Amino acid sequence: MKNRLFFRTPYSLHSTETLDIDRHKRFMSSSSAIRLHYGFEKIDPTIEADLLAMPQEHKLFEKMQEIFDGKVVNTIHGYPSENRSVGHMKCRDPFDNFNQTEVKKAILFAKNCPYKHVVVVGIGGSNLGTEAIYVGLSNYSKKREIFFIANIDPRNTEDVLQHVELKQTLFIFCSKSGGTLEIQSNLELMKELYQKMGIEAKKHFVCVTTPKSPMDDSKTFSDIFYMEESVGGRYSVTSMIGVLPLALVYGEEVVTDFLKGAHATDQTLLEKDPKKNPALMDALLAYWNTAVLGAEGTLIAPYAYDLRRLTAHFQQLFMESNGKSVTKEGEFTLKRTQNIVFGGVLTNDQHSYYQAVHQGTFHLDMTVVGFCKSHSKVNIENDQTTLHQKLNANLLAQSIALATGLKTDNPNTTFIGNRSSRILMMESLNAFNLGALLAHFEGRTIFFGFLLGINSFDQEGVQLGKRLAKDVIEKMKSPKKDPLVEHIFNW
Amino acid sequence: MKNRLFFRTPYSLHSTETLDIDRHKRFMSSSSAIRLHYGFEKIDPTIEADLLAMPQEHKLFEKMQEIFDGKVVNTIHGYPSENRSVGHMKCRDPFDNFNQTEVKKAILFAKNCPYKHVVVVGIGGSNLGTEAIYVGLSNYSKKREIFFIANIDPRNTEDVLQHVELKQTLFIFCSKSGGTLEIQSNLELMKELYQKMGIEAKKHFVCVTTPKSPMDDSKTFSDIFYMEESVGGRYSVTSMIGVLPLALVYGEEVVTDFLKGAHATDQTLLEKDPKKNPALMDALLAYWNTAVLGAEGTLIAPYAYDLRRLTAHFQQLFMESNGKSVTKEGEFTLKRTQNIVFGGVLTNDQHSYYQAVHQGTFHLDMTVVGFCKSHSKVNIENDQTTLHQKLNANLLAQSIALATGLKTDNPNTTFIGNRSSRILMMESLNAFNLGALLAHFEGRTIFFGFLLGINSFDQEGVQLGKRLAKDVIEKMKSPKKDPLVEHIFNW
Repeated sequence: MKNRLFFRTPYSLHSTETLDIDRHKRFMSSSSAIRLHYGFEKIDPTIEADLLAMPQEHKLFEKMQEIFDGKVVNTIHGYPSENRSVGHMKCRDPFDNFNQTEVKKAILFAKNCPYKHVVVVGIGGSNLGTEAIYVGLSNYSKKREIFFIANIDPRNTEDVLQHVELKQTLFIFCSKSGGTLEIQSNLELMKELYQKMGIEAKKHFVCVTTPKSPMDDSKTFSDIFYMEESVGGRYSVTSMIGVLPLALVYGEEVVTDFLKGAHATDQTLLEKDPKKNPALMDALLAYWNTAVLGAEGTLIAPYAYDLRRLTAHFQQLFMESNGKSVTKEGEFTLKRTQNIVFGGVLTNDQHSYYQAVHQGTFHLDMTVVGFCKSHSKVNIENDQTTLHQKLNANLLAQSIALATGLKTDNPNTTFIGNRSSRILMMESLNAFNLGALLAHFEGRTIFFGFLLGINSFDQEGVQLGKRLAKDVIEKMKSPKKDPLVEHIFNW
Repeated sequence: MKNRLFFRTPYSLHSTETLDIDRHKRFMSSSSAIRLHYGFEKIDPTIEADLLAMPQEHKLFEKMQEIFDGKVVNTIHGYPSENRSVGHMKCRDPFDNFNQTEVKKAILFAKNCPYKHVVVVGIGGSNLGTEAIYVGLSNYSKKREIFFIANIDPRNTEDVLQHVELKQTLFIFCSKSGGTLEIQSNLELMKELYQKMGIEAKKHFVCVTTPKSPMDDSKTFSDIFYMEESVGGRYSVTSMIGVLPLALVYGEEVVTDFLKGAHATDQTLLEKDPKKNPALMDALLAYWNTAVLGAEGTLIAPYAYDLRRLTAHFQQLFMESNGKSVTKEGEFTLKRTQNIVFGGVLTNDQHSYYQAVHQGTFHLDMTVVGFCKSHSKVNIENDQTTLHQKLNANLLAQSIALATGLKTDNPNTTFIGNRSSRILMMESLNAFNLGALLAHFEGRTIFFGFLLGINSFDQEGVQLGKRLAKDVIEKMKSPKKDPLVEHIFNW
């Protein structure tokens, strides 16, 4: 019987064996780069057995195999759709000619680039992932700095222009379709600025787009880097969208390691045993917490200062992929799909909204991310433990506190406990591991979409707002004042 | 009868009058600085009447008056508690001697400060608000830059040290209690670094703390700035915690305007008519959406690039204040309290998780923040509208799209609609208005706490994790290896 999970009584984390080492040794899934510890989840051997049976019952491997095989899976049965294959894993496949050619080109370009600053002009999928990895690798030395223009608010552009010298700056315009309004506006603006300085703008302009898009234009751009149509924005970090900027900042070795790490995770995704396939296990647990136990939110909690922009990327990855109401069969779903994703960086967040995580009235699907070792040179030791050990002590303490709670005579200092979390550990934060981590969460997203019966690769939900924005702009232009527009925006 | 709201049928935003100008003119609450438009909420005149009656029924003004009167309101009936008054509004009260003395001292100190960089060492309430306002005022010219150390992860400190020259740097150590572990660790580290350089550290160290705390020590700090015990961390932006750094960056005029703006909002909080008290109206609508309609999340959506750090602060303000399960009467509540708060900056977020906002399976209490005018110098016009107008067109288009939805023959491109939002507008983003906005959300938080029957001023939920972290640290130090600690952290 499918969906037995809905009949199970969740394991109570108040049970005496919650902290038993045998429980934690059993409830673990690991690949060479990633260990997923799920002893703090509300599961027992019966529930785990149900979870482990799901990949076969839901044909998860067949579906993942279709993606590897380049089948057209970005579809809704019986309705028009994007009707594409899903190509992001090819971006880091060492045997893929299209992408390997671009990677080599980007690395060579980066080596010879004469400019001091890089400005990446891109929105959503062309911004959040690149920023997350750029910041995430700060432990490596930087050849240049990146600035991001991602908002139509002119203050974004103004702010970036204050920090760069135009003569010393390379602009990378990123748009898969080549038609994004915000990118075009900024392109026109920058052209004008260079013209006023008497400098040929083209020398400072490159772009990332798909072949034959409106931006595939060698009159405007001195170099053009390609991504494939089949790579969705939120999955595009390992395409030229991320690789070109990262190569300019961190150079060949770091970028190559990063891609290798992502590829290493991809190679675990068809591993049949979920205990050796952490991305799959992570998705099964997300399903248990979200679809079965009804978690209102997904908390991603990285214990690493350098990963402070990571959750903003995962928020997009998860919510844009699976925050939908219609299944691949074209039916409105009865299940809760992707809930609200949030999280910043720890330990900061412990001093902020963790009050509500411990004592609030909602339930979370919570994944903690940590590293066993630190590369920091100021990882000083005092009172017999290093700062990084203190960081990790905080990590484990939160999972224990959430699970076990605390009964006191004062209801206000009582912790109800029985709140679940899982812990994803890696050896240390380096380029290979960050690639592996990124691909882990991409894989989790895809498996989770399979379990929900959702097409994780389109994003129709952003279209209506775009169209209505054009309508409102027309109303703003019209000499006949629109009463609602006037009412809201006149002061 | 109290709580009539639970019997009401929510207004359907599918109704034909949803976009009627009369509806929007009626459903509005305004002060001189703030207009709250709530015509896109699921309310009709009956529901509005219920909401408008609640302040009297729930004695909201009496409770707010107690705060202004300095009564001890930070309590739980029948149980030990922090047992304090709530003093943050005194921080911007021009007749309050204690705070005015400190403000003058900070402004004078800032004028004479010889250093080029400022590093603020503080966590949670000593970090997020200051950062939000520091970034929020970027439109003004900066005398210096601020860097923040807010994480026990040594990478945070290492990263900041790469950006500052110690000889040119002022360190502000912020801790209300004077005993925060993370602050002390960093203090020791910086002392050592200055010692190694043969420089007297004290000349570079000042602190913000309460009188007579362990940090009130003129041997360590060349200047000490005071805040009152009654000012909670998350409410402390207008205390020396925020004022000192902001004075060092933006100078007297900007800081004075900022405080005046916050005070101006405070003066509206006792206004009996909720239609002239936007903070109160905002709280009533938060109650309607959260406690009555069961929203899983609170989305704060600022359409202003400079406000990109604001929601992280409000996430703490809301969730640490009202993310609780126990009422002021010491009873476990039956209501949903503060849910998950999230949001980044728009229009970026429209290209990210808005897929799920439009087509996902959850409901939100959503407040959009916008500005009628732009100060940007690159607010260029093309095709008859400026960039800032395009930004605002996007703002309004989202509320319309969420409310009205769109029916198509394809379920995947169908928008169910009937999703609510409200729009908070101000004239422009300046220091006065940012102060007013901050105090608006502080006021909303307090009123919302009153409605939930919660003490919004303590934070017992962060204590257990802190204590257990110390236990884990002891286990890490012990020569007898702890099996769980080894299992999770050994690689």
